[in-house]
Amino acid sequence: MKRLAILGSTGSIGKQTLEVVREFPDRFEVVALACGRNIPLLKEQVAEFKPHLVTFNQVETNDEISDVNHLSLDEIACHPEIDFIVVATSGSAGLSPTLAAIRSGKTVALANKEVLVMAGDIVMSEAQRYKTDIIPVDSEHSAIWQCLNGESKKEISKIILTASGGPFKSRDTALLSEVTPEEALNHPTWQMGVKVTIDSATLMNKGMEIIEAHWLFGVPFSRIEVLIHPQSIVHSMVEFVDGSTKAQLSMPDMRLPIQYALTHPERWEDHFHNEMNLGSLGALEFEPVDLDRYPCLRLASDAGEKGRTYPAVLCAADDEAVSLFLNKRIGFLDIAALVARTLDLHKAVENPTIEEIVAADVWARETVRASVEVAG
Amino acid sequence: MKRLAILGSTGSIGKQTLEVVREFPDRFEVVALACGRNIPLLKEQVAEFKPHLVTFNQVETNDEISDVNHLSLDEIACHPEIDFIVVATSGSAGLSPTLAAIRSGKTVALANKEVLVMAGDIVMSEAQRYKTDIIPVDSEHSAIWQCLNGESKKEISKIILTASGGPFKSRDTALLSEVTPEEALNHPTWQMGVKVTIDSATLMNKGMEIIEAHWLFGVPFSRIEVLIHPQSIVHSMVEFVDGSTKAQLSMPDMRLPIQYALTHPERWEDHFHNEMNLGSLGALEFEPVDLDRYPCLRLASDAGEKGRTYPAVLCAADDEAVSLFLNKRIGFLDIAALVARTLDLHKAVENPTIEEIVAADVWARETVRASVEVAG
Repeated sequence: MKRLAILGSTGSIGKQTLEVVREFPDRFEVVALACGRNIPLLKEQVAEFKPHLVTFNQVETNDEISDVNHLSLDEIACHPEIDFIVVATSGSAGLSPTLAAIRSGKTVALANKEVLVMAGDIVMSEAQRYKTDIIPVDSEHSAIWQCLNGESKKEISKIILTASGGPFKSRDTALLSEVTPEEALNHPTWQMGVKVTIDSATLMNKGMEIIEAHWLFGVPFSRIEVLIHPQSIVHSMVEFVDGSTKAQLSMPDMRLPIQYALTHPERWEDHFHNEMNLGSLGALEFEPVDLDRYPCLRLASDAGEKGRTYPAVLCAADDEAVSLFLNKRIGFLDIAALVARTLDLHKAVENPTIEEIVAADVWARETVRASVEVAG
Repeated sequence: MKRLAILGSTGSIGKQTLEVVREFPDRFEVVALACGRNIPLLKEQVAEFKPHLVTFNQVETNDEISDVNHLSLDEIACHPEIDFIVVATSGSAGLSPTLAAIRSGKTVALANKEVLVMAGDIVMSEAQRYKTDIIPVDSEHSAIWQCLNGESKKEISKIILTASGGPFKSRDTALLSEVTPEEALNHPTWQMGVKVTIDSATLMNKGMEIIEAHWLFGVPFSRIEVLIHPQSIVHSMVEFVDGSTKAQLSMPDMRLPIQYALTHPERWEDHFHNEMNLGSLGALEFEPVDLDRYPCLRLASDAGEKGRTYPAVLCAADDEAVSLFLNKRIGFLDIAALVARTLDLHKAVENPTIEEIVAADVWARETVRASVEVAG
């Protein structure tokens, strides 16, 4: 029986984590749930899964959720009743609880991209120091991790991250400035949260995944490639020094990598009927990425290579820019332009502490907002 | 330093094994070479690799190869100076030395399909009893084996063997009766020996691989599927119970699986420049197999499921029929017809011994030849 904490339980990954847990009631115990603002859904989850530890950001009355203990994210992350913590928060919110969980020796299933993008060096050093496993939840990193089962990381020659290419893979680039939030939210293959769907349209998402893969698997940036794969069936690949490549495939359903993160090293039966029939799917296509179409991809991989506080600025500037785009304050192409401008203005800090990373995040958000207000 | 014996050193797999060995002169020692009739090539190999044990089937003068000891295949297979034996003979010739190697605890890299097809039950029981590793060399079984690294066989839900489909994948089936040996020997993706190239055109090869996969990985026939994949890049796949599938990919070059068989569990650098660029390859296609086009595939999987001496009859009848086809004594479609007829006539033996398996082989060859002589 694994005793779970799920931070971000009302988001897309949190909800799907609970769908997996629901299928295996005898094998998981939900000890703690944490969310941001969606208190009505959290109440439903508490009623069904009966955690006795809960936290949320905004509470209007103290008696809204009774019979549970209200703790901070960090208190949950290091609580002795928990073995396994799913960090499915967003933005920089996952940083502090992830470090708290690592330092108390919990296994961490990491779905919050920004944790490794912003602070990969600190997080991985601490995980090594405390001998804590960091388990990937993202379909791409889960694929790489699965391909590395029984293999040696020293024998990796290349990691190939696949990207669907999003909804604008074939659109005339001259027309990309006119893309609306509604169009950008219409992802061809994956059902995901709003922010990550926009990041999939700009490929900022894939850029952040390059940085995550670098930290998770210890592979230099020069050996991480991205290939467009519109069918989203091959979730990523690892090429080894001997010319052999391993790929992991499945139907695009986030519950599959979530389940594997929870059951590893075992594989439990798929209850979601995701039979994949390659014979009827026909063809798996691959094409190189056009970096002119996806400037965010290069911004992200450059920020990753430069390191320091640049990746934190990338994340925060992108988060603000995506909000402005969703609120129709800026155009689709302005997302990359604003992130690029903010990275240019940034005075990076060498070997930053967590506090300096968080300060860079705050600075980047203010810089993006200020530049739009000035422009507007 | 691995001390190798290569049985069948002048055949396609034997020669490619020596190409791999040549690339790593400090890591392999060729202790023994054995071939059938190609004495000129064997002499070249002896001059280059300096084995001190040699065997061959036909010798005209006793002094043709000097400074080496002449032993039988079985004597080589259990020789104390050898750690690792590559069985790249063909037909039933590999059966006895494979068993001898297993019983003396050598690691066996098995490229001789018929060994497992004819006597999989005996070979795998003996390997288990003597705790000997049987390592696959075939690209398909190497792919499955690689996909199973770090995984549990109990969690396999399906094995998917890929098949190029051979040169007649799209030819009107009404015209298949007119196929010439020259056309059948023109394989679209792989360079292989003559017999296996014809078996790839009929898909008999793939049928035998189903039987091999059954024995090597302990998976029931009902869970082994074949998919046509014309590019021969995905060499096979394993689907697990949790809905995740792993695939192994590389350029079609037999030296890659041979090298992995020799270096496992390590992976050594590819010296053959087999960079795979999926972005420029474009698409990997998959389609179901049309069993009407490939009757040999069904004959083989049926013989595998029925077990007993049927698979031995299948192999021997196919071997004779392919020879007759290559000698233009019968047509292309007669290969399947002759194998089917011989299987129908066969009175199978339950739990056969090696002697009974060999007797079934002899009977099947005589039956095929007699039926052609009668017809002719």
